[in-house]
Amino acid sequence: MKIPFQHSAACRTAMDLKSYLKERRDLIDRTMNRLVPREQDYPEKLHSAMRYSLFSGGKRLRPVLTLAGCEAVGGVMEHALPAACALEMIHTYSLIHDDLPAMDNDDMRRGMASNHKAFGEAVAVLAGDALLTHAFYVIADSASSPIQDGKRLQMVREIAAAAGCMGMVGGQTVDILSEGKDTVDLPILEYIHTHKTGALIRTAVRVGAIVGGADKREMQDLTEYGEKIGLAFQITDDLLDLLGDEKRLGKQVGSDLKKGEKTYPAAYGIQESKNRARELMESALDALSRFDDRADPLREIARYMVERIN
Amino acid sequence: MKIPFQHSAACRTAMDLKSYLKERRDLIDRTMNRLVPREQDYPEKLHSAMRYSLFSGGKRLRPVLTLAGCEAVGGVMEHALPAACALEMIHTYSLIHDDLPAMDNDDMRRGMASNHKAFGEAVAVLAGDALLTHAFYVIADSASSPIQDGKRLQMVREIAAAAGCMGMVGGQTVDILSEGKDTVDLPILEYIHTHKTGALIRTAVRVGAIVGGADKREMQDLTEYGEKIGLAFQITDDLLDLLGDEKRLGKQVGSDLKKGEKTYPAAYGIQESKNRARELMESALDALSRFDDRADPLREIARYMVERIN
Repeated sequence: MKIPFQHSAACRTAMDLKSYLKERRDLIDRTMNRLVPREQDYPEKLHSAMRYSLFSGGKRLRPVLTLAGCEAVGGVMEHALPAACALEMIHTYSLIHDDLPAMDNDDMRRGMASNHKAFGEAVAVLAGDALLTHAFYVIADSASSPIQDGKRLQMVREIAAAAGCMGMVGGQTVDILSEGKDTVDLPILEYIHTHKTGALIRTAVRVGAIVGGADKREMQDLTEYGEKIGLAFQITDDLLDLLGDEKRLGKQVGSDLKKGEKTYPAAYGIQESKNRARELMESALDALSRFDDRADPLREIARYMVERIN
Repeated sequence: MKIPFQHSAACRTAMDLKSYLKERRDLIDRTMNRLVPREQDYPEKLHSAMRYSLFSGGKRLRPVLTLAGCEAVGGVMEHALPAACALEMIHTYSLIHDDLPAMDNDDMRRGMASNHKAFGEAVAVLAGDALLTHAFYVIADSASSPIQDGKRLQMVREIAAAAGCMGMVGGQTVDILSEGKDTVDLPILEYIHTHKTGALIRTAVRVGAIVGGADKREMQDLTEYGEKIGLAFQITDDLLDLLGDEKRLGKQVGSDLKKGEKTYPAAYGIQESKNRARELMESALDALSRFDDRADPLREIARYMVERIN
């Protein structure tokens, strides 16, 4: 059974992309709401803390990419929902742990108190642990997935590899350890970007493709797309932070970037970063050249990412 | 292909059990050494921290139970090794996070500096995250397991359920939140015991049984065995802590147990706890009554647990 996706007219303009993204975010949120224990389930404080960060207005980039990757190869988008939600749970756990006093020590996240500020440090550590663990539960739970066992195991393996010591946690470790250094070598900056954020974004697209039944060449193309937009996302996010600071401070900050700051704009300057983001977006679109209009959501997401900074 | 286990003469006495346990521990350690990135793999500090706690002389109770559970139903013990090691990785991550300043704030573990004392708090959080993630990688990685996909998915699901918010993390949350309270209700004490330690021990036996191809009745019996020894282990461990204190302090401490302490001896007294541990051991042996001598290692482990306190 294949559920048709109304894509022909949609996603042609940024305006349409916005309603597409909103619709997908709502679907993802409804599904996560179903997949995660309720706040009234014992122990209530743990489940409240998990839900507090999970439903705090994230962009849902990773799960949206998973659904769009599934569609691009003609798969049933709904079948990718559990894995998509699992990726968002892992992303959320990583934010909770990154914000901890021993890590980035951030009191705020998405305009709200960070998890440890709202629930205390111990519960924040545990809520992160629980979200990470629950992500694997959700993928493996047969009740929530019609996907064949081999594919689901492949997803567990790929997600664990992308999220673990050779992926996201590795990137965060290097990020933390290079803090306070006067200069950060470019290979290290690149390692941080490709591992801390890139690995999970790349895997989000791949997981959608696995569910959708991609063949080898489609998988290669979508992997390349995922790698390019992963890096483009990191650069544009860093740029938006900077441009936001400019707006807030009322002056150009590009000239007085802190030494050793681990961002692309800090290393290459603002204009060069904008150029690089645009190049990456174009490479991402190139990687999709063999796909028909079912890959339009992926194309629009790539374009939108770069449009935000212009 | 079935690799026969030399069990007929072995495991009849505590002496034999010791050499059995040593042999199994060595096998588990060699396998974990192969399954976890090396210390020289980048980022070195993260992998060193993971290995520091993983190879710090744990009893390996959980993986030993997995291997013994597999054997009890006639399975090939070696096939259960990846899952057994994954359970030890999860147990180790939980110890690292439990020791954190925001949690139990323990500077020492197994006679060594705890992970955050040796590597700093940030790396300790990340090493725990990485061990948890890597555990799922190891189960899902086809290169390290000859077990069919459906069984491996079932293991991911069972282990995630036992380790997550409805299992171990749930138990640790309640434990942390009831700290400092004058009295702890018995249902809460029981919840902590069955979730914080019981869930993973029960699952360790079950996972071995899954690999070994247990039928429904065998699975029920082994699950009951796992539940009984999980609780027996908790009680005997609490008793050994107490008796160790007595030895160190040179006086009986049973009479001046701290109010609100969340241990079985604190709630029921030392003699009643010894009785309860013995009853649980006997129930665990009863649960194995339908098994032949391939379940002798499980029997000996149950007996040994209780013998330690007499």
